[in-house]
Amino acid sequence: MMQPNIPDTGLPRVVIVGGGFGGINLAKQLRKAPVQVVLLDRNNYHLFQPLLYQVSTAGLEPDSIAFPLRGIFGRQKNLHFRMAEVKGVRPAENTLETGIGEIHYDYLVIATGSNTNFFGNKLIEQHGIGMKSLIEAVQIRNYVIKQFEETLLLADKEEIKSKLTFVIVGGGPTGVEMAGAISELRKYILPKDYPELPLDCMDIYLVEMGPRLLPTMSEFSSAKALEGSQRLGVKVLLNTAVKEYDGQTLLLGNGEKIATKSLIWAAGVKGIPIKGFDKEILLPNGRIMVNEYCQVKGFDNILAIGDIAQMTNDPRFPRGYPMVAQVAIQQGKLVAGNLVKRLQGRSMQPFKYKDLGSLATIGRNKAVAEIGKTKLGGRFAWFIWMAVHLMSLLGFRNKMVVLTNWIYRYFTFDRGTRIIIKRGAANIVKLRQSILHPEQEEVS
Amino acid sequence: MMQPNIPDTGLPRVVIVGGGFGGINLAKQLRKAPVQVVLLDRNNYHLFQPLLYQVSTAGLEPDSIAFPLRGIFGRQKNLHFRMAEVKGVRPAENTLETGIGEIHYDYLVIATGSNTNFFGNKLIEQHGIGMKSLIEAVQIRNYVIKQFEETLLLADKEEIKSKLTFVIVGGGPTGVEMAGAISELRKYILPKDYPELPLDCMDIYLVEMGPRLLPTMSEFSSAKALEGSQRLGVKVLLNTAVKEYDGQTLLLGNGEKIATKSLIWAAGVKGIPIKGFDKEILLPNGRIMVNEYCQVKGFDNILAIGDIAQMTNDPRFPRGYPMVAQVAIQQGKLVAGNLVKRLQGRSMQPFKYKDLGSLATIGRNKAVAEIGKTKLGGRFAWFIWMAVHLMSLLGFRNKMVVLTNWIYRYFTFDRGTRIIIKRGAANIVKLRQSILHPEQEEVS
Repeated sequence: MMQPNIPDTGLPRVVIVGGGFGGINLAKQLRKAPVQVVLLDRNNYHLFQPLLYQVSTAGLEPDSIAFPLRGIFGRQKNLHFRMAEVKGVRPAENTLETGIGEIHYDYLVIATGSNTNFFGNKLIEQHGIGMKSLIEAVQIRNYVIKQFEETLLLADKEEIKSKLTFVIVGGGPTGVEMAGAISELRKYILPKDYPELPLDCMDIYLVEMGPRLLPTMSEFSSAKALEGSQRLGVKVLLNTAVKEYDGQTLLLGNGEKIATKSLIWAAGVKGIPIKGFDKEILLPNGRIMVNEYCQVKGFDNILAIGDIAQMTNDPRFPRGYPMVAQVAIQQGKLVAGNLVKRLQGRSMQPFKYKDLGSLATIGRNKAVAEIGKTKLGGRFAWFIWMAVHLMSLLGFRNKMVVLTNWIYRYFTFDRGTRIIIKRGAANIVKLRQSILHPEQEEVS
Repeated sequence: MMQPNIPDTGLPRVVIVGGGFGGINLAKQLRKAPVQVVLLDRNNYHLFQPLLYQVSTAGLEPDSIAFPLRGIFGRQKNLHFRMAEVKGVRPAENTLETGIGEIHYDYLVIATGSNTNFFGNKLIEQHGIGMKSLIEAVQIRNYVIKQFEETLLLADKEEIKSKLTFVIVGGGPTGVEMAGAISELRKYILPKDYPELPLDCMDIYLVEMGPRLLPTMSEFSSAKALEGSQRLGVKVLLNTAVKEYDGQTLLLGNGEKIATKSLIWAAGVKGIPIKGFDKEILLPNGRIMVNEYCQVKGFDNILAIGDIAQMTNDPRFPRGYPMVAQVAIQQGKLVAGNLVKRLQGRSMQPFKYKDLGSLATIGRNKAVAEIGKTKLGGRFAWFIWMAVHLMSLLGFRNKMVVLTNWIYRYFTFDRGTRIIIKRGAANIVKLRQSILHPEQEEVS
C-alpha cells in the first residue's frame, strides 16, 4: 500500500503543489526556515517553459529544458519531494488528497501553473495542439518532421499544400517565436534535408486576434516583431479571429479559409485549479482569487502563487498580473519571506511586482527586449535574450548542453535534434493518443 | 495516395534497407559511384547502439545518440532517403514492398540488423524488457527512476526489496555495462536524490549462462570484468541459466528464485529478416545465409550485411561473424567496392574480417579493451573507450553533447538526464504498451 511516508518532525509543514518557477523559488527560499517543506509535482522535473518552442522546432533536446527536481533540491535538508498528482483539498481538515495518499499540511501553497486555453472551442481543442508541456513540444516536433517526410510521397498539389501549411494561433511571444523557428527550419534546413520538397508550397501563418503582435509589449516591439516575422516569410494575419477548425480547414473570423492539417494553439492559457474550493473564488480563466499576501480568498493558511493566482492589487494590472515567470518567481519569494515573518510573529509584506521587462525572439538572431522605457531590437536584444535564458537555466549541465546546441545552431544554421523517436499517426490528435506504433515496439 | 516518388535516372538503383552501421557505411561509400542509392529505414535516424545503455541509465539524452539520416546524407547527391517500413520482397520481379508503396531495385542490400532474442521464452518476452531500441532505453530509464520514486511510498520490506532488485540477464558487454551503470546510480546519485531510500535494500544481479563474463573476449578481460563488477556491488551469477519469469519472481536454472519486478534482457540478439525468402536460407537465429561476397544464397543481385547476414567463410567464426558494429561496417564497405567493380566489369573481392578488437566498460572509469594480443584494463582502457566511441559518433553536434555530458558526469558523479518524460504503468510490460497516461496529456 502506498503512502507519502513523510516523517513528522514537529516543525510546521509547508506543502507546495507544483515544481514550476513559483514552486521552486518558494521552496528554495525556505531552505533555512524552521519548517518542513513538501514539494509535489506530477512530473519529477521542472520544465523550463520559455524554451519549449525550441524543442518543438528541433532546436533543443527535450532533456535539456527539463531539470530533475531531486537534483535541484538534493542538498536541501528540510525538503521532501514526492512525485504525485493532487486530487483535491479538504481545507477544514488541512488535508491534501493526492494519488499517493493524504498529506496533512500546516500551510498549503498552490503553484500549479497553467495550461492551454482553447476558450471553450471543443473542435479546436480536439484537432489542434497546444504547447505547454514537454510531451506536446516533442509531439509537435515529431509531427512537423513527419509532414515533411510524408509530403515526399505525395503527388497531389492540394494535398501537399495542406500538409505543408502550418498555422500558429496567437501573436504573443510564444506564437511569434514558434512561427520564426518554423520559418528557419524552412529557410535553412529543409533545402538541405529535403531537396525534393517543393518548399514554395510551404506556408506559415501567424494569426492574431488583436491589432498587433506582442500585445503586452510596446508598439515599437510590435512593429519590430511584425517586420522581422514577415522578413522570415511568415504570413501574419492581424485583427483576425479564429472561428472553427475541423482538422482539415481552418475557418477565420473574416470568413476566409486556410487548408491545414497543423494548427498550433498559442493563443491563451488558463489556470489549473485544485478541487475543493468554492466556485466563487475561482475565475472563468481557472485562476484562484488571492489577496496581496497571496492568501487564497477566505483562507489563512492556503496560498496561491504564479499563473494560478489572480491578484488585483495593482492598478497597472486590473485583471491580475500577467501569467509570466517573473510574477511567479517574485510571489514565491514573497510567500517564503512572509511565512518566516509569521513564524517570528512579525507582520507580512504585500506583493509589489517589479516589471523586469519582456523578451521575445524573432528568428535566428533577432529579438525584442524592453525594460522600463528602454527598448531594444535586433542582434543586441538577441544576445540579451540568450544571456537571460541561460542564466535562468538551472544546473550547469543543462546550461552547457543548451549553450553547445545554440553555438552549433548559430554557426551552422543547423537544427540538430530533428529525430522522430516515435512515429505517430496521420494527424495531431491521433498522434497524441497513440504515439507508439505497437507493432514497431514488439520484439519480433 | 502515397508513393515513394523516387525519380528514375537510368542509373542502376541500389536499395539499402536499414540505416544502421552497415547501411550507412555502404551508402557513404557509394557516394561517387555511378548508381542511384535509395536508403530506407523505419526511423528517420541512425541509432548509435553502443551507447544505448547510457540512455537507459540516465547518462545521456536520447537525442545525442540518434542521428537524423537526412543530416548524415544531406550532401550526397545520388542518395534518396525514405522513412519506410519494409513489408517484403518479390525477388523474381526485383521489387520491394514497403509501407509507402513498391520500390523497384537493381540491387537490394538487406541491412536490417537485429533485435532482442528471447530464445522463444514467451513469458520472459512478455515480462522482461530488451534494450535494442531508443524507445526501450528510454522506457528502462523511466522505469528505473519510477521504481525509486515509488519505493519511497512503501512500508513493506519485501515489496521494497522486490522493487529495488534489478536483474540483468546476459554477461556480454551490454549486460556488464548496464549492471555497472545501474551500480553507479546507486553509489553516486541515489544517496543524494533519495536520502530516505534504504539503499542497502537495492540489489543488482548480472546473470550469465556461461563460466565467464564477456565470453567473446579473453580470460584476462573476463577476470577484470568480474572483479570490477563485483567491486561496484553487482552480484554476478555465473554458470547460471534463467528458466522462467512471471513479472514477480525469476526462477533460475539451479532452482533458486529472485524476487524482482525489473528484468532486463541483454542475453542475445537475432536477425530481423524480410519476408519473401525461402525458409531454407533463413537460420533459426533470424540470420540470412550469404556467401563470401555478401550475396544472399541463390541470388545475384540481393545482398545482406551486418547482423542479419550469416557468413561462414572464416574458420575463426564457424557460426558466422559476431553481430557487432565492425563486421557491419566492413561488410558495408566491401559491398560498395564490389558493386563498383561489377559495374566496371571487374571481379569482386571476398570478405576478410579484420578483428579490430573489443571494448567494454565497467563503471565510471574502468574498461577492458583488447586488440589482437594487446589487452588493457583500467583507466587507460577507459580513455580509449571514450575516444573510440566519440570518434565514431557522427556529427559534430552530437560529439559535443556527448562530450559535455561525459565531462559533467566524470567530474560531478552526476547523472544529468534522470527525468521521466512520460509516466508509465506499474510494470514494464504495461509501460511499453501504454506509455502515455492520456489523462495527463488531455488539455484541461
